[in-house]
Amino acid sequence: MKHVLTIGEILVEIMALDPGNGFLEPISLIGPFASGAPAIFIDQVARLGQPCGIIGCVGNDDFGELCLQRLQADGVDIGAVARDPERPTGSAFVRYRPDGQRDFVFNIRHSACGSMAASEASQAAIRGCDHLHVMGTSLFSESLVEMTTGAIQTVRARGGTISFDPNIRGELLELPGLREALKSVAMLADLFMPSGQELFLFSQARTESHAVAEVLDWGARAVVVKRGTEGASYFDREQTMSVPAIPVREVDPTGAGDCFGATFVTCWLRGMPPERALSLANAAGAMAVLKKGPMEGVSTMGELQAFLEAGEGRK
Amino acid sequence: MKHVLTIGEILVEIMALDPGNGFLEPISLIGPFASGAPAIFIDQVARLGQPCGIIGCVGNDDFGELCLQRLQADGVDIGAVARDPERPTGSAFVRYRPDGQRDFVFNIRHSACGSMAASEASQAAIRGCDHLHVMGTSLFSESLVEMTTGAIQTVRARGGTISFDPNIRGELLELPGLREALKSVAMLADLFMPSGQELFLFSQARTESHAVAEVLDWGARAVVVKRGTEGASYFDREQTMSVPAIPVREVDPTGAGDCFGATFVTCWLRGMPPERALSLANAAGAMAVLKKGPMEGVSTMGELQAFLEAGEGRK
Repeated sequence: MKHVLTIGEILVEIMALDPGNGFLEPISLIGPFASGAPAIFIDQVARLGQPCGIIGCVGNDDFGELCLQRLQADGVDIGAVARDPERPTGSAFVRYRPDGQRDFVFNIRHSACGSMAASEASQAAIRGCDHLHVMGTSLFSESLVEMTTGAIQTVRARGGTISFDPNIRGELLELPGLREALKSVAMLADLFMPSGQELFLFSQARTESHAVAEVLDWGARAVVVKRGTEGASYFDREQTMSVPAIPVREVDPTGAGDCFGATFVTCWLRGMPPERALSLANAAGAMAVLKKGPMEGVSTMGELQAFLEAGEGRK
Repeated sequence: MKHVLTIGEILVEIMALDPGNGFLEPISLIGPFASGAPAIFIDQVARLGQPCGIIGCVGNDDFGELCLQRLQADGVDIGAVARDPERPTGSAFVRYRPDGQRDFVFNIRHSACGSMAASEASQAAIRGCDHLHVMGTSLFSESLVEMTTGAIQTVRARGGTISFDPNIRGELLELPGLREALKSVAMLADLFMPSGQELFLFSQARTESHAVAEVLDWGARAVVVKRGTEGASYFDREQTMSVPAIPVREVDPTGAGDCFGATFVTCWLRGMPPERALSLANAAGAMAVLKKGPMEGVSTMGELQAFLEAGEGRK
């Protein structure tokens, strides 16, 4: 089985229990939950039974311990996760506004996440993987961009594959040089997995099909467009297909895209037909939103299959 | 009325609702509460009607906004509080263990608290004050020690007074040079306010009276020893007195020592007899523990007087 690696932020999330605006008064919270887009991604990969690991850095505190225990228990290789002796584990406070939008208070760049650096363990992890998944959220500093692009080159040189989920927060795009860094990563991806309008981030194209054609011209083997409650589409040089989302009663949307991506990448690496991979990934996204907590809704392959079969039965 | 200034960390506190060990699983929390020992101290000073201000730094986030709004609403001059555009507001997660001890996850040194630096506003605040209160917790970096010792010299040169609360967390004492920095501050204090065994931090003395004599020999005008539920004692060259604590049903001990200190300093600056100052300070400490939240139990002078009178009535 192919070994999947990702690089990026491992952090804890603290959630407001009730909707409202911001964090300007004491409110009821729940946490810490293990989180971070790459961490959620790789935890879902592990839960599917795929060998995998993450390069990251947490603090020498209970929050870091919680994240490491959780990832390890689910089967993620954490040998390349450093522990910063000084900086705290990254954190994100999140509160849902009444309109469904979210307010955040982040501590990422100045947390242990920001001290990620190449090490013997990270180099070994990069040399030992067959597939590298890159997330735009993780490219928040020059040194991380450098480390990630170096990893991409190593993995490609050894015949491995790359997937890329731009996963961009608006405020990050303002960082100098970030858009260029993202584009250079996108151009090296075998599997490009934008959410909705992210397809147009690096393209002058006006239509989806033109933008997809452009990405395929860069050399990508496939493009998967995630459309949230509208489902997802798959494009390669031979075929295009869409599958609808599975309607569920959403409890907490955080992590849905990461679980979708993890499942699609895993199925794709296992050589499944794209339609089946899309369906299972959709199921993973649907199951992810049924539980409160960013990483609490990850699923095994058996659970995804059962979920899909139950859906077939309901038709 | 004399203008009181303090320098130090302004942060938010997030509290676990139920006792337990550490933060290794998602639990119910409440917060953010405005906190930080110097912030609690100065908020209590302001609530007593004394003109006052704080030099500090918060992040450009909701947590910083909450702290500033709270301090300003209570009458603290926040003109010398900077906002770091990048680093987050400091934070402390706290959970009470079943035995009453506390577990913390701190983010202070690498938060906006750590980017405190001398500025025109801070220099103006230092020149404009009559009394400077220094807390050991705030001396967590070389630049803060330098800024604080500079402020002490300026205030003393202008005829102002200094109070010093060592308020030491064990892990901070490990920082290189910190014990020496604390001692040099202690030796310049007019009012030295240790908690319990902190009296012996800088002394080879074996008994309380010898340690007190040593501090008075350095030039301190008075020593106030805080003993928590055992009350407090006052020492100067002429007199010694102790007052018992006021027994209350403790809801949350955080902030009690800071409210005690703020009230004693304020009363002392107003020229009250030490016994009265001790009694009011004890009342402030007692009232502080009646409310959940580090800064939620601050009191007005009227409330302290009424609380003491009610106690007299109960005798």
